[in-house]
Amino acid sequence: MSPNGSRTRSPRHDVLFEPLAIGPKTLRNRFYQVPHCTGFGTEKPLSQAHFRAMKAEGGWAAVCTEYAPVSADSDSMPYVSARLWDDDDARNLAVMCEAAHRYGALAGVELHHEGMIANPRESRWPAVGPSQIANVAYPSGAAPKEMDVDDIRRVQRDWASAAVRARDIGFDIIYVQSAHSALLAQFLSPTLNRRTDGYGGSLENRARMWLETLELVRHTVGIDCVIAARIAVDALGPWGAPIDDGLRFVELADDLVDLWDITVGATAGFDRLDSAASRFFGEGYELEWTRQVRAVTDKPIIGVGRFTNPDTMAELVRRRDLDIIGAARPSIADPFLPKKIEEGRYGEIRECIGCNICYSRAEYGGHIGCTQNATAGEEYRRGWHPERFSRARTTGKGVLVVGAGSAGLECAIVLAKRGHDRVHLVEKDAEVGGCVQWISRLPGLGEWRKVLDWRLQQLDRLRSNIEVITGRTLEAADVLSYGAELVVLATGSRWAADGFNGLTFEAIPGADASQNFVLTPEQIMLENKRPPGTRLWRGHGFGTACTRSGSRC
Amino acid sequence: MSPNGSRTRSPRHDVLFEPLAIGPKTLRNRFYQVPHCTGFGTEKPLSQAHFRAMKAEGGWAAVCTEYAPVSADSDSMPYVSARLWDDDDARNLAVMCEAAHRYGALAGVELHHEGMIANPRESRWPAVGPSQIANVAYPSGAAPKEMDVDDIRRVQRDWASAAVRARDIGFDIIYVQSAHSALLAQFLSPTLNRRTDGYGGSLENRARMWLETLELVRHTVGIDCVIAARIAVDALGPWGAPIDDGLRFVELADDLVDLWDITVGATAGFDRLDSAASRFFGEGYELEWTRQVRAVTDKPIIGVGRFTNPDTMAELVRRRDLDIIGAARPSIADPFLPKKIEEGRYGEIRECIGCNICYSRAEYGGHIGCTQNATAGEEYRRGWHPERFSRARTTGKGVLVVGAGSAGLECAIVLAKRGHDRVHLVEKDAEVGGCVQWISRLPGLGEWRKVLDWRLQQLDRLRSNIEVITGRTLEAADVLSYGAELVVLATGSRWAADGFNGLTFEAIPGADASQNFVLTPEQIMLENKRPPGTRLWRGHGFGTACTRSGSRC
Repeated sequence: MSPNGSRTRSPRHDVLFEPLAIGPKTLRNRFYQVPHCTGFGTEKPLSQAHFRAMKAEGGWAAVCTEYAPVSADSDSMPYVSARLWDDDDARNLAVMCEAAHRYGALAGVELHHEGMIANPRESRWPAVGPSQIANVAYPSGAAPKEMDVDDIRRVQRDWASAAVRARDIGFDIIYVQSAHSALLAQFLSPTLNRRTDGYGGSLENRARMWLETLELVRHTVGIDCVIAARIAVDALGPWGAPIDDGLRFVELADDLVDLWDITVGATAGFDRLDSAASRFFGEGYELEWTRQVRAVTDKPIIGVGRFTNPDTMAELVRRRDLDIIGAARPSIADPFLPKKIEEGRYGEIRECIGCNICYSRAEYGGHIGCTQNATAGEEYRRGWHPERFSRARTTGKGVLVVGAGSAGLECAIVLAKRGHDRVHLVEKDAEVGGCVQWISRLPGLGEWRKVLDWRLQQLDRLRSNIEVITGRTLEAADVLSYGAELVVLATGSRWAADGFNGLTFEAIPGADASQNFVLTPEQIMLENKRPPGTRLWRGHGFGTACTRSGSRC
Repeated sequence: MSPNGSRTRSPRHDVLFEPLAIGPKTLRNRFYQVPHCTGFGTEKPLSQAHFRAMKAEGGWAAVCTEYAPVSADSDSMPYVSARLWDDDDARNLAVMCEAAHRYGALAGVELHHEGMIANPRESRWPAVGPSQIANVAYPSGAAPKEMDVDDIRRVQRDWASAAVRARDIGFDIIYVQSAHSALLAQFLSPTLNRRTDGYGGSLENRARMWLETLELVRHTVGIDCVIAARIAVDALGPWGAPIDDGLRFVELADDLVDLWDITVGATAGFDRLDSAASRFFGEGYELEWTRQVRAVTDKPIIGVGRFTNPDTMAELVRRRDLDIIGAARPSIADPFLPKKIEEGRYGEIRECIGCNICYSRAEYGGHIGCTQNATAGEEYRRGWHPERFSRARTTGKGVLVVGAGSAGLECAIVLAKRGHDRVHLVEKDAEVGGCVQWISRLPGLGEWRKVLDWRLQQLDRLRSNIEVITGRTLEAADVLSYGAELVVLATGSRWAADGFNGLTFEAIPGADASQNFVLTPEQIMLENKRPPGTRLWRGHGFGTACTRSGSRC
């Protein structure tokens, strides 16, 4: 429902649905899924295709791959990225292009080279970079080979070959990308580029590698594709300095670029502001830097910042701070965000809470997931859809769900959407929500309350199918005699407070959380329990924004 | 050449080439590549097939996959294992079976389930185990679901289905394996199994899960395949206790097993003795435990222990301590180990040095490698063969190799084998060998000298093609004027001693290794340099064997 109760779009959001020409193509609206990792890459082509296609179906005007290295000296094992090293990789990514087009979205590929921060464990090639400076981004600590002109030409040719492959399998948008510390930005950085030849020294020289690559790609793929550049605009100068180098590069490259994808963070040092956790950074926190780019280009600009509020988005587009609302995390939490705004179904938006489990699962688990959207990553493998639910074979049966934390709530909601009309959701506390109730009251974690908000709103719509009973504890015998034909236990877990020893696999006899030297997180956070003789340290940043340190803080 | 100079096999090694019946199949000799990780699994079927086939070609009578889980709740992402979850996995592993058979070897598949130490990040299934005890093997710390009888039956059915798939694609040897802490051993362990039903308590009860699985697999696949069991025989009782439980299990299961693959290490606690580094453990160190198994079974026994000495191997087989010489690491370092012994080419054996880079690369780099055998893992991808070398296109040209450390030596040797007859290998030191010269003199690292030994022996055979010049330093101008048409630099690397700061990417002005507070590893180890006012701590285990802690010490 819209803020005023009707289910029609507010006219002030119309601007988000104006088409926009980007180079030779047209975006159907202003919603753009920027490149982001999934753990699918080219390894799981169908998971990749169905995941991106879900967003295309949900109204995003463009969907992109994650970073896709053009050469084998940019290999990320054991982490899975996309790749466009050869025709086999192209065959795998072609499936995603077709899927995006089926739903009317443009498809983009984030061509990439890791440069000196590569750690090519699988291909065993040496990493290459503008200068021989140790790789501090990964544990290897290895120093890259300083690229000679042959190396430069080889990587540029690889980029052009990958671009041709991308065009030929149907990608509409081809990145010559170098956000987040990648090779072209390493050349651009006065900190990482210490060359004394024509590729080092002045900004013009440092920009040469990127500009030549843009030129070659544009020349090679012809006029059929959008040429996009992604740049972390704040990250080229010294730590905390103005972003003059970034802005000057945009000016230098502007003629070669159809679309600017502007972001922030990394390159040299650890000031990773990209994809920052909600604990420290609010919606739109990147604008401080990205909105400065408008002054130097009239080309379309994409910006991100975990945008979920349509008023904010519309205002940014109206003012032309940004032309396109970029999103990674909000598009994972709700693939149907654009459609819901378009149709004025504002209350149905599953808002991203900025917990970053998505990236964590993609990177370290090989398979993306989401706290808000349980279907994320399971579109192909399990055939799950965030908005459409098949009728269950068990609909005639009464169901008892024990525990109304976020899992129990989600379960009851999905059961109701799958046609169950006799679902009892029983909760021992006076309110539903479980641990989200108190977690979201901790300093900085207010956004996490949205996990509960969305589910309460859904519960409200499904009132006739779900009966919520709070303040009632069910023992095993109560469950058995409840009369339900199906029972789901969603009672959560608790901390082991028995002194479990991982070497002997034994507990400490008598140890439990009633003792003053045994503390569970809940006791510390909710009951203010402290070890004997100590007080909680309340220092730096507790409850306030910790500037310039992002999710690593 | 044989120890006495001829190239014929010593008759005392004949016993290693006697065929042996194992269940319904026959091993052509006593050399058996036990299951070991590669990073290929079912993800790189052709790398897997060519890697194992090279050993088959080199004379191993059987080659096995790495561990191959039978169910999706035993997923190892981001580490790559084999899998036999479904027909697609079977299709991938079929390539390896065919390749092994082409060279007359049997093919084995190590069917497996990780149980409570699984951390299924990709499949997102919960881990399962005999009891709900926290997983201390991996950072997750999660507690598995305690298996009910339905779970037990499901895993047993999965095992049988995987076995049928394995048989149908041509595997000769099917493991019902549970070495190194896997599910069946978790049931067997009184530490990890705290059940009170028919699957817990007495040894007979704890063995039930494994015995039933063996029985079902044997019943399901029929009499066409060898049923093998792999057990870490020392690891079931409490830490350091006698191995009575392991031996009693062998007695209980003996009728169901055609082949015992006996190893040591893990299950509960951190006493990982399997695949121990040479720094602390010598050839045959596992025999202390594994040779006790003979007393309880007359079935064929495989044992491992980094065996490379044919005298040791023959003696073990003659005494029937072992019937079959198992090898993982020695078969990586020299896939042709059996053939070389068979043909009396003893001096040509590339002996494993026990550095464990193989496992490290397989597990953390997704692609196995070897310090001794540069071709390991590159049989398919680069078409490399450890014994056969194609003629180079550059054979007419003179080559200068600068630096005769292990890389320069390897390079000169391979150039000569590829037909180059004018290779100059120039070394600044008085001796060839580079850092291996001093590293192999450090306490416990004597085995590493074999890197040099093998290359010196090869150099000796290739004298007419390679000229070795020691004690000569070449500057850039010397290299240019040397007269070589091809130049290879193999001068190694050195430690940065300039105070490089990974945040600012700057060095400390004036810092270098001549100062008393800047120390390189070589200065510490070779020159006894110490920070002002300190002495080197010479405590526990320095230069002596550190018992019962293996490669983690």
